[in-house]
Amino acid sequence: MDELNIIKIIQNNLKYKGSSRVVKSIGDDCAVLNMNGGNYLTITTDMMFRSSHFPNILSPFQIGHRVITANLSDIASMGAKPLGVVVSMGFNNPSKKFIEELTNGINYATELYGCPIIGGDTNKSKELTLCGTAFGITHNPIYRYNGNIGDDIVITNDIGKVYCAFKILEMIEKDKKYNILIEEYSEIMEKLYMPIAQVKIGLLLNKYNYASSCCDISDGLGKELFYMGNFEVKSKKLINAMPKIVIEFCDRFNLNPIGVALNSGEEWELLFTTKEYDKINNLLNKYNNNDNNNYNNAKLCPNQRLVNFPAGKIDPNQRLVNFPTRKIVKIGKIIDKGHYLDSEILHTSGYVHKWSDKNE
Amino acid sequence: MDELNIIKIIQNNLKYKGSSRVVKSIGDDCAVLNMNGGNYLTITTDMMFRSSHFPNILSPFQIGHRVITANLSDIASMGAKPLGVVVSMGFNNPSKKFIEELTNGINYATELYGCPIIGGDTNKSKELTLCGTAFGITHNPIYRYNGNIGDDIVITNDIGKVYCAFKILEMIEKDKKYNILIEEYSEIMEKLYMPIAQVKIGLLLNKYNYASSCCDISDGLGKELFYMGNFEVKSKKLINAMPKIVIEFCDRFNLNPIGVALNSGEEWELLFTTKEYDKINNLLNKYNNNDNNNYNNAKLCPNQRLVNFPAGKIDPNQRLVNFPTRKIVKIGKIIDKGHYLDSEILHTSGYVHKWSDKNE
Repeated sequence: MDELNIIKIIQNNLKYKGSSRVVKSIGDDCAVLNMNGGNYLTITTDMMFRSSHFPNILSPFQIGHRVITANLSDIASMGAKPLGVVVSMGFNNPSKKFIEELTNGINYATELYGCPIIGGDTNKSKELTLCGTAFGITHNPIYRYNGNIGDDIVITNDIGKVYCAFKILEMIEKDKKYNILIEEYSEIMEKLYMPIAQVKIGLLLNKYNYASSCCDISDGLGKELFYMGNFEVKSKKLINAMPKIVIEFCDRFNLNPIGVALNSGEEWELLFTTKEYDKINNLLNKYNNNDNNNYNNAKLCPNQRLVNFPAGKIDPNQRLVNFPTRKIVKIGKIIDKGHYLDSEILHTSGYVHKWSDKNE
Repeated sequence: MDELNIIKIIQNNLKYKGSSRVVKSIGDDCAVLNMNGGNYLTITTDMMFRSSHFPNILSPFQIGHRVITANLSDIASMGAKPLGVVVSMGFNNPSKKFIEELTNGINYATELYGCPIIGGDTNKSKELTLCGTAFGITHNPIYRYNGNIGDDIVITNDIGKVYCAFKILEMIEKDKKYNILIEEYSEIMEKLYMPIAQVKIGLLLNKYNYASSCCDISDGLGKELFYMGNFEVKSKKLINAMPKIVIEFCDRFNLNPIGVALNSGEEWELLFTTKEYDKINNLLNKYNNNDNNNYNNAKLCPNQRLVNFPAGKIDPNQRLVNFPTRKIVKIGKIIDKGHYLDSEILHTSGYVHKWSDKNE
């Protein structure tokens, strides 16, 4: 039985629906509870295991950062303000150093997102197991399904790096000579090491009511698009959303860039629909130019800054990513019927953990 | 490194404290966030693994019930009203039947406590892993540490059964001939199978402001007492808080009943301090007598009713425990200095998972 079957059985079998406070239960990035007074609590949870969620290349610092980021990305996709996160941890004989670096990564991420860790649970387990549950608050949760016909479909920053990073790890797995690619494509690897949840632009979209729907790209664009409704995506625009280095990588290793764009998971970019692309762009330029007053260009790109980040040690001069959304890119439109890539019907695809076979 | 060391390193190392909304972070049964308008959100999380948290004797139904109960017991101890729970699940090749029975147990518990499951996450894992995070709401959270000198220390229902149930499992582990004890001491085993979180009396204590402090007995009375402050506990009263069958069991198998009372964990009874013992007792009698209008006496005891509960099948005629607190028992008083059992100084003790060695 695969994961999707298990989820189906669980969903079909859960019976008790509870109170009128529950606005949104299972099915969106977050559950939503009505707290009255126009306040909505958004809640998400993510469970991660060493063997299936954390590629061996990640440092303990990056693992700590990752579990917070995965949860905060869901809070971001609802346009909510982070309130707090609890993290339960299962350890299998960890060293003091490992725990310290892991918590340093958690410290870094919780400060980055302004989301304190307020509780947790610690256990002995067969392998490192981290389960985060994050809460946000908003007057106006942005759901996945509300895109209107004619809305632009937009993503933050870019797409494709994470797929390529996993491809590199896969190649190294088969032949150590590819180890050299880690250095050569450090810009690609960065996004696997230190992905950034798009909390700030989520808050902006919400504040100005610019997004009709929103989700985060965790399972891969090819899957997330189907959650949004009917769409037409343009391959030319997808290419436009991919960094040069990714296109170059695809070219060199004979990968179809569109396939890469559609199947790149754990990007934790936002995918949203809007009629206000230009206005959002203007806002972004303003925020990013403000950054320029304090940060030089190199520092503007969070991934660049973070790749050489010493695990467990925070340089106070380049401490936090001020505004982690550098740009937004249109990739298509919401249409009245069907799912199209250019004029071809697109079938659902999506990301499958690439490193799970090895360690299990 | 043991669990307590790990917790210490984590707590010392977590730096980011976040916003002024955080009233209580790590250290009580729940974290507490100020939601304004006099509302406080209480949050707790519990991670459980097949090998260290679920004795083999538990059915999937009982496991599902247990993960919800463990979380709701923390919500109960704050005197909060359950709002919802999210449950992340890791499975290792489960059958359809296993998942259905597990979710039936979750259904039963969520309805029992009026706490819908509103989200979750599903993964493949090395062993069954369940991580629940529950939220409650209250105007007036009851903390662990606020007992006043002279307050009575009180527990709900009784103490000791769970220790004896684990003792039985331990004896069977060594010699199968003891299997017969399962039947013979079914009243004891019930509490291991289907413990009940004391949500309703938690709400009552809160509503009438009768408790100065409160926690649940998850790690064992001998540990929880120390979290409450300075105390004097009377062994005669402890004996009085133990069911006849437990005393009889201790007698037969040469166990010190006081040790059993102090070390019985996962009882999920409430331990609270109050100046209003008589008033609470009156309230309880009223609630339990009301039950008598609808339920016969046999049904009044939740554990009795639930032991023969067919896993995965809910009998609509004896569906929910109407009021699961049958009685409260004084066991001592808050004093100005020291920790005493009768006139002897008591050193911290507490419950250690009894079945963890076997499966690890």
